[in-house]
Amino acid sequence: MSKLVIVGTVAFDAIETPFGKTDKILGGAATFIGLAASQFKVNASVVSIVGGDFPQEYLDLLSHKNIDVSGIEIVQNGKTFFWSGRYHNDMNSRDTLITELNVLADFNPKVPKEYTDSEIVMLGNLHPLTQLSVLGQMESKPKLVILDTMNFWMDNALDDLHTVLKKVDVITINDDEARQLTSEFSLVVAARKIHKMGPKYVIIKKGEHGALLFHNDNVFYAPALPLEEVFDPTGAGDTFAGGFTGYLAKTGDISFENMKNAVIYGSTLASFCVEKFGTKRMENLTNEEIHKRLQQFKTLTQFEIELT
Amino acid sequence: MSKLVIVGTVAFDAIETPFGKTDKILGGAATFIGLAASQFKVNASVVSIVGGDFPQEYLDLLSHKNIDVSGIEIVQNGKTFFWSGRYHNDMNSRDTLITELNVLADFNPKVPKEYTDSEIVMLGNLHPLTQLSVLGQMESKPKLVILDTMNFWMDNALDDLHTVLKKVDVITINDDEARQLTSEFSLVVAARKIHKMGPKYVIIKKGEHGALLFHNDNVFYAPALPLEEVFDPTGAGDTFAGGFTGYLAKTGDISFENMKNAVIYGSTLASFCVEKFGTKRMENLTNEEIHKRLQQFKTLTQFEIELT
Repeated sequence: MSKLVIVGTVAFDAIETPFGKTDKILGGAATFIGLAASQFKVNASVVSIVGGDFPQEYLDLLSHKNIDVSGIEIVQNGKTFFWSGRYHNDMNSRDTLITELNVLADFNPKVPKEYTDSEIVMLGNLHPLTQLSVLGQMESKPKLVILDTMNFWMDNALDDLHTVLKKVDVITINDDEARQLTSEFSLVVAARKIHKMGPKYVIIKKGEHGALLFHNDNVFYAPALPLEEVFDPTGAGDTFAGGFTGYLAKTGDISFENMKNAVIYGSTLASFCVEKFGTKRMENLTNEEIHKRLQQFKTLTQFEIELT
Repeated sequence: MSKLVIVGTVAFDAIETPFGKTDKILGGAATFIGLAASQFKVNASVVSIVGGDFPQEYLDLLSHKNIDVSGIEIVQNGKTFFWSGRYHNDMNSRDTLITELNVLADFNPKVPKEYTDSEIVMLGNLHPLTQLSVLGQMESKPKLVILDTMNFWMDNALDDLHTVLKKVDVITINDDEARQLTSEFSLVVAARKIHKMGPKYVIIKKGEHGALLFHNDNVFYAPALPLEEVFDPTGAGDTFAGGFTGYLAKTGDISFENMKNAVIYGSTLASFCVEKFGTKRMENLTNEEIHKRLQQFKTLTQFEIELT
C-alpha cells in the first residue's frame, strides 16, 4: 500500500437540482476525493483550509474514515470556501449562483511532515501554483502524481498550468476542457497533445458518457453506469478521481493494465455519489455495495466474441 | 444461417463536411444496412425503389456483395430519392439542404417471393405503414424483426409508429429520439417505456458515445471506437444496424448474450463507415481489417478485476 496526499478544497456547498435543494452541506474536491479513496483503507492525508465556521463533525467524519486531517488548516477568524449552484433539467449543465473564496483566497498548503514521502500525490482542482507548491514540499519524487483541473485555470492561469503539467503523470479533465486546452475537437488528438504537455496518462471524463484513459497509443473506455436517476452530480468527477487514486494507492501497481481497473473503480464510486445530495451516499457506502456494482460494470461491458 | 430481408431507402446523397463535399453518390439506409450485413455472407434481399436515373453499377455493387436486388423496383420514368446535407464542425449535428422524395413518395414495397419466409426482417427508417406492409407480406412470423425509425415519424405518424412497434422485437433509435418517444430524460427509464410499446430489445444509439442494448433489466454498453477523425458520419447508424442484423443472421442465435456480440460488430463496422465519404469505406472492407478492429474493441473495453 502506498501513502497518499490529497490537496484540494474542503468546503460548503449549497445545491439545487430538479429534485430539491440543500442548505450549506459538506462539499469540496478534496472531501469527495478523500471519501472515495478511503474506501480502499489507504493511508491518506487531506491538505486543505477551512474557516472557524467549519463544523468539527465534518472533520470527524473524515477522521473516522481513516483520513489524516492534520493538513487541514483551520483559520478561526475566517470563513470556509462556499459554492452554490443550480443544475438544469438535463443534469449535465449548471449555473454557479455563489462563489465565496473566503479562506481559500490565501490558501498556502502545508503537507504534514509524515506525508512528505508519500508515493502518490493527488492534486485536486486548485490554482496551478497551489498544486505546484505541494509537489515542491515532497521530499522525494512521488511514484505517481495525478492532477485535476478545470477551464477556469485555462482562462486565467494557463502558463502556470503548463508549468505544473510538466510534473504530472496523470491528468483528469473533462471533454470540453480537453478540447479547450488543445484546440482540438477529436479527443484522440487532444489526448495526444496533452501527452506532449507532460502527463503520460490522460483521463478524459465525459460525465454520463463515461471516461477514456489514454496512454501512448493505448486507450481504454469505462462507461458510466446507466442510471434511472441522477439525483445530484456534485462531486462525481472528484469521486471518480478519488476512486482511481485510492485503488492505485492500495494496489501499488501503476501499470496501464491496472489503471484500467482503477478507472472502473472510479466510475463505480461515482455512480454511487450521484444518488444522493453531496457526500451523503459516500458516507455509508459498504464494500458489498461496491462489489455488487462492479459486477454490474462487468455485465455492462464484457462480451465473448472469440478472436483467433 | 438465417435468410434476411432489408427494407429501406436506396438513394443518392450529396454530403458536405468540414473535410470536403461530394456530388450525388450512392446512399440510403438499405444500402448501408445491406453493405454491412453482407460482411457476414448472409443470404439477404434489399427491398426498395429507385428511378431510371439510378446507375446499374450501384446495383451491381450490391449484387457482387451477394445481396439480392430483385426487390429493388426500378421506375424508369422516375427519379431516385435524393438527400443532401451539411455537417457542422462537431460532426454530431447537420442541416438538411435538400430532400427530394421522388419515387419514394409512392413506394409500395414488394418482398421477393423467395424471401417471404425469411427468419429475420430489418425494417430501415421509412414511414411506419411501409414498414408494416413488409411484415404483412411475410408468410410466417419471422424469428426476429428489427426496426429503425426517426423523430420525423414521431412528429408525423406517431399512431402508425405505435402500431408497427407492437410487432417488433428490436428497435434501434438514437438518444434524442428515445427521449422524444417517451418524454423521459433518463435513457434507462426511456428504454423501459419503449419495452412496453412492443420491442423486447431496445438499442439506443449515442453516436460518438456508443450504444446501449436494453433487455428487461439487463443492459449492455458498446462504446464507439475513439477516432482521430470522423470524416463523414452519413450511414453510421444504418451500418451499425446492418452489422448487428448481419451477425445475428449469420449465427442464428438471438439470445441477449449473442446480441452483445452483435452490438460490438455493429459498432465495429460503423467505425469504418465514417472514415470515408458515403459507402466508399464499406465497399472494400476486408475480414482482416474487421478482425483487427474487433481486437481494438476488446482492448478498449475488457478489464481484469477479479470478483469473488
